[in-house]
Amino acid sequence: MKVKSIDTHEQSPVQMEGVEGAQMRMLVGPEDGATNFHMRHFEVTPGGHTPHHSHDYEHEIVVLAGEGVANSEQGERSFKAGDIIFVPANEKHQFRNTGADPLKFICLIPAPQDCSK
Amino acid sequence: MKVKSIDTHEQSPVQMEGVEGAQMRMLVGPEDGATNFHMRHFEVTPGGHTPHHSHDYEHEIVVLAGEGVANSEQGERSFKAGDIIFVPANEKHQFRNTGADPLKFICLIPAPQDCSK
Repeated sequence: MKVKSIDTHEQSPVQMEGVEGAQMRMLVGPEDGATNFHMRHFEVTPGGHTPHHSHDYEHEIVVLAGEGVANSEQGERSFKAGDIIFVPANEKHQFRNTGADPLKFICLIPAPQDCSK
Repeated sequence: MKVKSIDTHEQSPVQMEGVEGAQMRMLVGPEDGATNFHMRHFEVTPGGHTPHHSHDYEHEIVVLAGEGVANSEQGERSFKAGDIIFVPANEKHQFRNTGADPLKFICLIPAPQDCSK
């Protein structure tokens, strides 16, 4: 069993086109032996944002701190600490920090599945 | 995209042998179209606990509020808000609320996979 504070995981800038002021921590990933899904932590500075994109896998998100706006296919959706967000696979999305404080959220994605076993 | 406060999800008592004072909310599950992994919220009263058991799937946990002790195969592990916990498949585990306030955590599990597709 791994028990570890979020803050003690190494944090790195997200180097991706369309990203502004975002940093990531891998909380539960391949190195922990997680084979089905991976847990990451994101911190976005005020005015910063994630890319406006889509992909063939979903996001399951827990907003821990701050507030923002999600650019979704159903229009702009406000969110804040204490909300969860589910982005289905292939839906275009972007998260922007519209508050004065850092926006912090957990974002989970599926790990690649090996169905040959 | 679903954006919804944790608190507005219906909460039900966990009816399972070995559970004391635990309630659950399904935050992202089959009804949301989540096919790879499911997000649940648990609230455990002071003195309450989850079952001491093991199963063939992992847990990925985010502790949102309170504090407790995990009965793990490596002994007792203290945890508190701001920690993440990874319980590998088949490892015996139990979470007890040892604090004075409600213990609240997010716990994710894999959804059944259909590898025939």
